[in-house]
Amino acid sequence: MDLDLIRSLVVPGTAKILLLSSDGLGGFPHPGTGRSELETARLPHLDALAQRGSCGLIRHVAPGITPGSGPGHLGLFGYDPLRFPVGRGVLEALGIDFDLRSGDVAARGNFCTVDGAGLITDRRAGRISTERCVELVDRLRTIRLPRVETFVQPVKEHRFVLVLRGAGLSGRLSETDPQAIGRPPLAAHAEAPEAEATARLVNRFVDQARGLLADAAPANMLLLRGFDELPTFPRFPEVFGLRAGAIAAYPMYRGLARLVGMDVLKTGPTFTDEVATLGAHFPAYDFLFLHYKDTDKAGEDGDFAGKVAALERLDAEIPAIEALRPDVLVVTGDHASPAVLAGHSWHPVPVVLAGRYALADTVSRFSERACAAGSLGTLPAHYLMPLCLAHALRLTKYGA
Amino acid sequence: MDLDLIRSLVVPGTAKILLLSSDGLGGFPHPGTGRSELETARLPHLDALAQRGSCGLIRHVAPGITPGSGPGHLGLFGYDPLRFPVGRGVLEALGIDFDLRSGDVAARGNFCTVDGAGLITDRRAGRISTERCVELVDRLRTIRLPRVETFVQPVKEHRFVLVLRGAGLSGRLSETDPQAIGRPPLAAHAEAPEAEATARLVNRFVDQARGLLADAAPANMLLLRGFDELPTFPRFPEVFGLRAGAIAAYPMYRGLARLVGMDVLKTGPTFTDEVATLGAHFPAYDFLFLHYKDTDKAGEDGDFAGKVAALERLDAEIPAIEALRPDVLVVTGDHASPAVLAGHSWHPVPVVLAGRYALADTVSRFSERACAAGSLGTLPAHYLMPLCLAHALRLTKYGA
Repeated sequence: MDLDLIRSLVVPGTAKILLLSSDGLGGFPHPGTGRSELETARLPHLDALAQRGSCGLIRHVAPGITPGSGPGHLGLFGYDPLRFPVGRGVLEALGIDFDLRSGDVAARGNFCTVDGAGLITDRRAGRISTERCVELVDRLRTIRLPRVETFVQPVKEHRFVLVLRGAGLSGRLSETDPQAIGRPPLAAHAEAPEAEATARLVNRFVDQARGLLADAAPANMLLLRGFDELPTFPRFPEVFGLRAGAIAAYPMYRGLARLVGMDVLKTGPTFTDEVATLGAHFPAYDFLFLHYKDTDKAGEDGDFAGKVAALERLDAEIPAIEALRPDVLVVTGDHASPAVLAGHSWHPVPVVLAGRYALADTVSRFSERACAAGSLGTLPAHYLMPLCLAHALRLTKYGA
Repeated sequence: MDLDLIRSLVVPGTAKILLLSSDGLGGFPHPGTGRSELETARLPHLDALAQRGSCGLIRHVAPGITPGSGPGHLGLFGYDPLRFPVGRGVLEALGIDFDLRSGDVAARGNFCTVDGAGLITDRRAGRISTERCVELVDRLRTIRLPRVETFVQPVKEHRFVLVLRGAGLSGRLSETDPQAIGRPPLAAHAEAPEAEATARLVNRFVDQARGLLADAAPANMLLLRGFDELPTFPRFPEVFGLRAGAIAAYPMYRGLARLVGMDVLKTGPTFTDEVATLGAHFPAYDFLFLHYKDTDKAGEDGDFAGKVAALERLDAEIPAIEALRPDVLVVTGDHASPAVLAGHSWHPVPVVLAGRYALADTVSRFSERACAAGSLGTLPAHYLMPLCLAHALRLTKYGA
């Protein structure tokens, strides 16, 4: 389904839509109990929502394909991730309010730990503090490359952004992260002829960084991934006819919302802060995107109990969210992060869509297995926005 | 979803995938009992597999479209049958190890029975013996056509292959099989201008054959279908990053596996032989395709009880297959062949995918109706391979 079709059917309305994305929401049964994180957690408010709403499963990219957080959220925002690819470097740069310009090449950086032989022992450098990250980024800012400007920006913990600015750069580069420990960082390779020069510059940057970080263990090396140039997206507010605001404590999700043209609202570091921000801005917007990070973090750490606890904390905030009386309330996630896999997975993710015109189906539990029996079926993520608009009575019919 | 996308996400792994295709697996309720073949059969091992795996229904081409065995299997192998059409003649020729060359036109032949008025009374000539088929093929080999070489090869029972080799041939021909009894064989018609000359040659072949077979009742005439030229397919082992072997007693399925680049393993005529071959070659492959023909044969013959028995024989072999401990085990079929229809049908086909990371859903019976409630939903066949790869942890995530 084309975004131009949606745009052509949008009509003005007053109903408000709230999209709550619990990052890495979906899980997988614990081998000891046979119950997933969602099935283990006590979630009275989410279960009640499932009972009065329409439920289903969201598939973000395609069957069997594990979504990164970028494609996962783009899907939730209505953009088919296969038609709108975007690199993580671009998202990270946008998420820290970096003034990315056309032609810039951005990459996500991780500080990592290498042993005496140069082999990676921790891909996240023990999650160093953000303060330490800032200090080490200052070292990297001393690196000068020929004919390009170099920007290094700290993000959070072990993460930073590298941006190269100059003529003739290309983002068609392979990553330096081997995605495994016990192996050395890789050289960046050009994936297209026009990226040869950029690959040489990046590898030169990494070589100099190695020397500058040698005494900084556990952050004594770096990994670069998600090389990309700034793409152009159809603007969310114009496509869907919605004044749209985004609330996310974590920068990447702010960057993604900004990429599609949402207003990014200033908020605090906790989800309670986010919910307060939501309440303050609710009257001024037609659509609000609210992001909850803790579920993904626990899942990626392989912390089953931690993910259960994160889900219960989320559930506790649902009454405050419902008290705002959004006309359409959607709760879902951008991908699964089962604790048993300690990472993203391809499993489809539960969704509930509640509102006056949402059919209450037979589902009464908000979980992977319960939602599989819901009336929404298993739905590509980019169909969710048209469904939200429909339930908000903001789409006219197609054809006479 | 593009095969290039899958190829770009494939990562090395050690997990093994086993795909068991029970030909014509799906059925339909017997009017007397209201239960389908699968619902009637005693299938303790397949039911147990359904209980611990993820279940669903497979749709091979599109809703309402009945798949031939070629498209049905291509779908299971990960190739969208609408994007990769292939004629049955090509498959039959490959299945008997015929050295098909680019530009050759191949057709599947059936000996059939016609009455004194030339009307078909049995489209399969009473399933004559393979020995008799060989004798009659020898007669057909005496036919000479102008400017082309003609090859006729016996297959099995009433089946043979016709190949025309020469310049300017085209496979865009209509079939001579009216797919019904009480009607005469049809003339082949060109479906494109470039096939006019080929149509004349084929009709000349059929006219000469009519005379040569006049005294050979019940095999006193022939039908030709599935005209096609040899197409080029992306190679399965390269697209999916799998050392792939195929085990099938029946030639067409070997031909199809060879067409996509699988190793075709030598096996015996029974399914027990096939399972022994599977055991012998299991260590050397990442992916093995195992084909079971009996279900389709009984279904096509309209033999409800025979299909039930064929399913129970299949079930009895499941423990030997599971004893190999494949990391991902999929059981499904290439199309439905309900006995009540005595032929292929469009009904979607049950599938179970079992493995460590396959969510056990609420399904506890391996049948059409039970699997409709499974967590895989109703899935286009060509998404099965990405799902297999995902469950084998052989795909990296899409985007960051």
